[in-house]
Amino acid sequence: MDRLSLNQFTIRDASLTDAVDACVRAGIPAIGLWREHVGQIGVEAAARYVTDAGLRVSSLCRGGFLTATDPRERAAAIADNRAAIEEAAALGAPCLVLVVGGLPAGSTDLAGARAAVLDAVGELAPYAGELGVRLALEALHPMYCADRAVLSTLGQALDWAERFPVEQVGVVVDTFHLWWDPAVLDQIARAGERIASYQVSDWVTPLPADVLLGRGMMGDGHIDFAPLTDAVAAAGYRGDIEVEIFNRSVWETPPDTVLATMCKRYVDLIAK
Amino acid sequence: MDRLSLNQFTIRDASLTDAVDACVRAGIPAIGLWREHVGQIGVEAAARYVTDAGLRVSSLCRGGFLTATDPRERAAAIADNRAAIEEAAALGAPCLVLVVGGLPAGSTDLAGARAAVLDAVGELAPYAGELGVRLALEALHPMYCADRAVLSTLGQALDWAERFPVEQVGVVVDTFHLWWDPAVLDQIARAGERIASYQVSDWVTPLPADVLLGRGMMGDGHIDFAPLTDAVAAAGYRGDIEVEIFNRSVWETPPDTVLATMCKRYVDLIAK
Repeated sequence: MDRLSLNQFTIRDASLTDAVDACVRAGIPAIGLWREHVGQIGVEAAARYVTDAGLRVSSLCRGGFLTATDPRERAAAIADNRAAIEEAAALGAPCLVLVVGGLPAGSTDLAGARAAVLDAVGELAPYAGELGVRLALEALHPMYCADRAVLSTLGQALDWAERFPVEQVGVVVDTFHLWWDPAVLDQIARAGERIASYQVSDWVTPLPADVLLGRGMMGDGHIDFAPLTDAVAAAGYRGDIEVEIFNRSVWETPPDTVLATMCKRYVDLIAK
Repeated sequence: MDRLSLNQFTIRDASLTDAVDACVRAGIPAIGLWREHVGQIGVEAAARYVTDAGLRVSSLCRGGFLTATDPRERAAAIADNRAAIEEAAALGAPCLVLVVGGLPAGSTDLAGARAAVLDAVGELAPYAGELGVRLALEALHPMYCADRAVLSTLGQALDWAERFPVEQVGVVVDTFHLWWDPAVLDQIARAGERIASYQVSDWVTPLPADVLLGRGMMGDGHIDFAPLTDAVAAAGYRGDIEVEIFNRSVWETPPDTVLATMCKRYVDLIAK
């Protein structure tokens, strides 16, 4: 379990300190933090609490939402992402996960939205590099293309990331978002040292009414994790492996129970 | 409107004869038939009714579901697809649309399911060719990969189709399934004369609880149809353009109203 990380949204309703304490009890050595939870106690207190507990921060979630066409909205998004980069640096997070945003309201200009993201990443990347934080472009499942992320495949994420220095822009490999892609194994191999984060959760059916909550515990769904995990290892990734689950029934389960299941499934399905 | 076709599932609750009559009233020159509806009156009566009304058949929906690993189930699927090919020939349908099937129950072997489909298509393609029917491989949106179709992108459909003679195996270009794909325009260009059918409907948000019913009327959602339609034209496709919508509120609307809206949207967004 020495590379296992709890993405704290897996136990969304726990505070940062409760999530850290639960990791310590479960023997989980790393945590992926969310800005919402960090903000409740402040960046410095959060950083201190995690460090004092002996945990690593595997990532900060999240920046992004960079598709606005209105100049004021765009400027606000850039400012918010700069703040997120600063928070990631203060927390010792190696990367800031970017959910790039969907189509602007009323727009069908998908190519334009994609160009806007690339432009904004170009503006943010040098600042991230200065602060020692890597922007981690996350391709989301294509079902979120309209309203959440116009970045839809790992290949597209790499097309974008490769325009920037490797220490400034990487990619997230997330099993839930990418498992269906016929090109995924080839693209993981291509990604190599661009892999900034490996996140795992399962694809369960039927999808819930709110498709944002469709992520399941590893082993509860349809994903074969071994080929994906092997490909990520073969690509050279040695960082933490985050379990990130958005799922109402997981959120309604006591955190210690969730973490116990998560550790067992991780050992059985990912680490073996 | 000389290339417009009603896929009859757009007015699912109408019988075949009612759907044909509605097309005639609306001035729609072609119809995409479903086996369920054809079966209610028999293939010969259906063929005669459509021909007597002066309509073309643009496609027959559908064959497929070819991922079974159990030998008896697989044999039954092959037999059913051979029957579907015969029906398509009797109806004068130029192609039989194939929804290839999802993962077998309890299986996470995505690569195996994909190989099974390709193997079955290889068994069916020569028979389709003999009968003058083209198998039309339909890549479904990746959100259906687990339970409906392990064929997820146009590029993958072409990788498979290109193993067979062009008159035996083609592909469907469906805006709902493919609009998000960063590679879609390149793959449409690659498809060329492999394009057996062009189907249009829109991507609406939020997705309904049953994601199978998420297809919307053109103009009600997030898809920019012009680049896709232009690419299909540039690839050389001159066949019918089918409107295929699975949507509860459309089904609850009187068919003549649906067809009037559909004709207007087709003229404004597709044919112009």
